[in-house]
Amino acid sequence: MPRPASTTLVPTTTLVLGGARSGKSAWAEALLAGGPALYLATGQALDGEMDERIRHHRARRGPRWTTVEEPLELTAALARHASPDRPVLVDCLTLWLSNLMHAGRDADADAAGLCEFLAAPAGPVVLVSNEVGLGLVPETRLGRDFRDHQGRLNQRVAAICRRVVFLAAGLPLFLKDEP
Amino acid sequence: MPRPASTTLVPTTTLVLGGARSGKSAWAEALLAGGPALYLATGQALDGEMDERIRHHRARRGPRWTTVEEPLELTAALARHASPDRPVLVDCLTLWLSNLMHAGRDADADAAGLCEFLAAPAGPVVLVSNEVGLGLVPETRLGRDFRDHQGRLNQRVAAICRRVVFLAAGLPLFLKDEP
Amino acid sequence: MPRPASTTLVPTTTLVLGGARSGKSAWAEALLAGGPALYLATGQALDGEMDERIRHHRARRGPRWTTVEEPLELTAALARHASPDRPVLVDCLTLWLSNLMHAGRDADADAAGLCEFLAAPAGPVVLVSNEVGLGLVPETRLGRDFRDHQGRLNQRVAAICRRVVFLAAGLPLFLKDEP
Repeated sequence: MPRPASTTLVPTTTLVLGGARSGKSAWAEALLAGGPALYLATGQALDGEMDERIRHHRARRGPRWTTVEEPLELTAALARHASPDRPVLVDCLTLWLSNLMHAGRDADADAAGLCEFLAAPAGPVVLVSNEVGLGLVPETRLGRDFRDHQGRLNQRVAAICRRVVFLAAGLPLFLKDEP
Repeated sequence: MPRPASTTLVPTTTLVLGGARSGKSAWAEALLAGGPALYLATGQALDGEMDERIRHHRARRGPRWTTVEEPLELTAALARHASPDRPVLVDCLTLWLSNLMHAGRDADADAAGLCEFLAAPAGPVVLVSNEVGLGLVPETRLGRDFRDHQGRLNQRVAAICRRVVFLAAGLPLFLKDEP
Repeated sequence: MPRPASTTLVPTTTLVLGGARSGKSAWAEALLAGGPALYLATGQALDGEMDERIRHHRARRGPRWTTVEEPLELTAALARHASPDRPVLVDCLTLWLSNLMHAGRDADADAAGLCEFLAAPAGPVVLVSNEVGLGLVPETRLGRDFRDHQGRLNQRVAAICRRVVFLAAGLPLFLKDEP
């Protein structure tokens, strides 16, 4: 897979958008290649499929990475861990949103808190998120709610990030790249 | 959300494509900021969810906008309202197509009529439409039919419009921008 | 629909990605306009819908095209037919993957074989494939498996192709275009 050279792309606040298996995580990891980095996982290994995926990702990242898991209090975790010397990769906003909704939280309020943090973070933060609204209208109210929340969350985070990239088949399209 | 400056983008015949909650309507409205405009709504408030969405959109647009509702006879409504002095925003082709199919109309014939009009409109027309073909194959024949009709309609309208924009997370990718 | 001029785009190894009814096949055919070409169909007419689609595509291509059908042994068929004088259009990788999975084959191994061939093909090969991961998470394990395999296959083929194009409403976005 093509990789952005860490010498050409400064790790600024970045949203990496894309579909399932579009290479989002690998691209985000490659963006932070070359130094220490913190992996902030929002996923929880609740079943075998998920557990397998988490182990696969962890093996790929290797020993340069510190891994922290935080399913709900993402903004507080970012406040603790963001640092100019060690970029943070949040993987991913879709699982975070799913966790918030399952826990009955006000996802819009949590999204507002995250965006407030991202407006002036203590260090580079790269966030991975899924685009989920490009199929037919979901048949369930829950499905439509999730899709709507995800779309609004992506818009808000994209508005505050300095760089937004859409991944397709592992290749990036730059939607925004502010100096 | 980033907005196109009305001074840099001329309101020519424009198709605004994207997924659900990708910021299509807000971007299209911003494109027409700064003067009077007509909002041609194809949606009908058949249930609470839809009613809520329509009221939300109407509140956001504000008093510069005249709103007209037309679920089926879109081309006739465009012929009545298109004007060099007041751009028209059609929101959206997906609901129009859904209405046509529910009414048992020949959607391809209606699409042909629309494209004939768009080839030489009396004033700027901006059309919002959903991309719905980027998930798995729908399980029902109706779902596949709708997806196929939507895809063909988007291709036809995109071919006739001078500008085509794909929205993701509120940010535009220009697929076409003819002078 | 806009067409790439065959005089400006050299027919190198190309992946044409997009959703259902996004104009992928028509764009790929137009890329190979102007000379003899071989159409390598992976689809099988197992039902009326599919049969209709195949006949529609065949009529559109016209007599310049030779058609070969190969549902499973795609790489072997490419090895037989690839030639500097006659480009091959593979339509499409999504049906090929579906056929492989239905036949109980190891799709990852078949993908590896295809990519090995594509690294040094005997002539231009253009491959059409669907992006299927931009909706909500599929409800069935089979759906998620297919989506994951398709995403991985697209990434692998995209990495080896010299040109990768994403189609939306019949219009191309170039993700990669190496000389």
